[in-house]
Amino acid sequence: MPPSLPKGNAIIGQSGGPTAVINQSLVGTVLALRELRAVKKIIGMRHGVNGLVADQLVDLTRTPARHLEAVARTPSAALGSSRDKPDPEYCARIVEACRKHDVRSFFYIGGNDSSDTCRIVNEIANTRENYELRCFHIPKTIDNDLVLSDHTPGFPSAARFQAMAFAADSLDNASLPGVKINIVMGRNAGFLTAAAALARGEGRDRDRNGPHLLYLPEVPFEPARFLADVERVYARLGRCQIAVSEGIQTADGRPIITTLMQGLDRDAHGNVQLSGVGALGDTLADLVRTNIKLAGGRSLRVRADTFGYIQRAWPDPSPVDAREARAAARFAVRMFAKGDTSGSVAIVREKGRAYRAAFRPVELADVAGKTRHLPPEFIAGHCDVSDAFVKWCRPLVGNLPPTARL
Amino acid sequence: MPPSLPKGNAIIGQSGGPTAVINQSLVGTVLALRELRAVKKIIGMRHGVNGLVADQLVDLTRTPARHLEAVARTPSAALGSSRDKPDPEYCARIVEACRKHDVRSFFYIGGNDSSDTCRIVNEIANTRENYELRCFHIPKTIDNDLVLSDHTPGFPSAARFQAMAFAADSLDNASLPGVKINIVMGRNAGFLTAAAALARGEGRDRDRNGPHLLYLPEVPFEPARFLADVERVYARLGRCQIAVSEGIQTADGRPIITTLMQGLDRDAHGNVQLSGVGALGDTLADLVRTNIKLAGGRSLRVRADTFGYIQRAWPDPSPVDAREARAAARFAVRMFAKGDTSGSVAIVREKGRAYRAAFRPVELADVAGKTRHLPPEFIAGHCDVSDAFVKWCRPLVGNLPPTARL
Repeated sequence: MPPSLPKGNAIIGQSGGPTAVINQSLVGTVLALRELRAVKKIIGMRHGVNGLVADQLVDLTRTPARHLEAVARTPSAALGSSRDKPDPEYCARIVEACRKHDVRSFFYIGGNDSSDTCRIVNEIANTRENYELRCFHIPKTIDNDLVLSDHTPGFPSAARFQAMAFAADSLDNASLPGVKINIVMGRNAGFLTAAAALARGEGRDRDRNGPHLLYLPEVPFEPARFLADVERVYARLGRCQIAVSEGIQTADGRPIITTLMQGLDRDAHGNVQLSGVGALGDTLADLVRTNIKLAGGRSLRVRADTFGYIQRAWPDPSPVDAREARAAARFAVRMFAKGDTSGSVAIVREKGRAYRAAFRPVELADVAGKTRHLPPEFIAGHCDVSDAFVKWCRPLVGNLPPTARL
Repeated sequence: MPPSLPKGNAIIGQSGGPTAVINQSLVGTVLALRELRAVKKIIGMRHGVNGLVADQLVDLTRTPARHLEAVARTPSAALGSSRDKPDPEYCARIVEACRKHDVRSFFYIGGNDSSDTCRIVNEIANTRENYELRCFHIPKTIDNDLVLSDHTPGFPSAARFQAMAFAADSLDNASLPGVKINIVMGRNAGFLTAAAALARGEGRDRDRNGPHLLYLPEVPFEPARFLADVERVYARLGRCQIAVSEGIQTADGRPIITTLMQGLDRDAHGNVQLSGVGALGDTLADLVRTNIKLAGGRSLRVRADTFGYIQRAWPDPSPVDAREARAAARFAVRMFAKGDTSGSVAIVREKGRAYRAAFRPVELADVAGKTRHLPPEFIAGHCDVSDAFVKWCRPLVGNLPPTARL
């Protein structure tokens, strides 16, 4: 017998940094909700919970499926996103807005901050406010820093961008040799920087192709050791391509960028702004330029690029990612349909030679606000990833354009 | 009767900043030369004329066509490139190396500096050194700044990158609103920055989609006017995406970046380094942050990204560009086969509704060292391009991923 579900409206929102496939999750949720008789209206929040409390809503109940499919293929958050991190008072206003709009199920697509919002809203509604509301978190983050999951929707597409960007940039660096530093997103977790290693490919040039050095937030960054690494690679190959996480830290956990600069922007979460600014790359480039000289005192050619927001929205998603982002959303709706009162979704990898993913329900409290880091078995030494990482990451990104050398 | 060609070897090189299709020109040259009986060996120079004088050569006479085709599809310069700008003494060494290797035809793929190298080498060989050598320039530059051509191989693929990057980044900016500045390559000519306008698409959202402001090197940049532009767009849309050429200048021709910074790298041509550094974007972002405040004195969210070297090597070339880069090279070899003693190739656009390109021979001296700028009819006001530009650029970039909004 099907469980008895609270009759009323469903609401859906998107939060945090957008991804190339976050709209697959949005559309997956909407289409799956349409199959449930208990759900009357399907409401979208503009700019996450911000739009809910400000009554900026959009009715998705009858949006043509064909238009939704076009939205699903569009990168970035079609409903708009939000960086708000609601406190209990804000969450009480969210519950009040849900009551006003007769919302009985709440779906929120986002990272670990968003799962925490889900958890607090769920708790306040069902205990303090005595309002029956079922809250579900649909995972999304390019950083891949959600616990309990093999990986997170959004990460595979951003990893695909890194693999393509580093491969192309390494060819550029080989044609006009020098030291090239590329700064990659990922405040706390090094997964995305690590994905640059896929650019090396699997052919016989693997040991010569960039990136030659990778610096992850999980490994303390030491300027003197960094300079010695660059000198060693440059002596061997006459060039050096370097992947650096924007979140690299000192041994005592201070972001390298804060040890180099002052007056940085902080967001509502108190985090220093690491993206949308070229300072870290430029400073590391200066460090190399000042400290490493060629024979005769000539300067090295040193360049730094900071891969900006396009790395999270590039319109060429990984096919695996597009499929899983949709399926994770459907799974969350199925949890609701089966009678679960709250939860999040984890992607797990099935054993076997060929890549296969499955979905599992997890408790909101087990994901909320927690950060997963690159595990030690994925790290090799202080400036590389392991073969195990490459093997893990390879099936996620889809086919990469082949390259050939003369 | 076929013309009598000087019997001997042919040499080919790549020069300047790489592109996504420069290897199409390389492979087109090699395969076309193989059809000529007068040509014995086909030699590649490593890193342009640098490899020729240093005897860093590679024999391409019998490289399997299948391998060459894989190279053609690989971005960046497979032979290696060079930033050397040879003076007459250097050119004399080039001629000497040609004599040593029995080279009778010289093909050089590059921009206006490379066409000048061709011109000087040709002159020194055939007059001062009394050595019969036929020199041909094959056009290539993402900047599109060669005179006499409708456009230049390499530009359409880099323009495609801008259209895709600005469209994705505009969706990102719409989901998390703020002021977003993107710095685009192009030292002297604004074609590539102008191509960002294609990101607006052709639908009914065209007036709301980014980029909302474009700053070109051809229009003097005035900070106060820039701030007024940003305020106006932000008041209308609650966000503002801006395309800025790395080469924006003051009214008296000084690069904006030199008015803001000191101690910049200069290359062998005496040019200030504009790419591979995030300073211009960060400085403009600071300008906005300091001077524009929201109600209540709150700061705007302002971010800047500098589209780095990946914009010239992104492995998703425009199909038109791949085809034309190959065809331009074949045309240069045909000029040689027909008996021309030197020259360059221009792409012209045929009249008619559908896009069609043709190739024309031009004199080296008519291209060498000259710079084409964005013509006035492609510029609208001080911060936009005209419809004529969009109409001109649109057929070059290929199909762009469609997007949809809610």
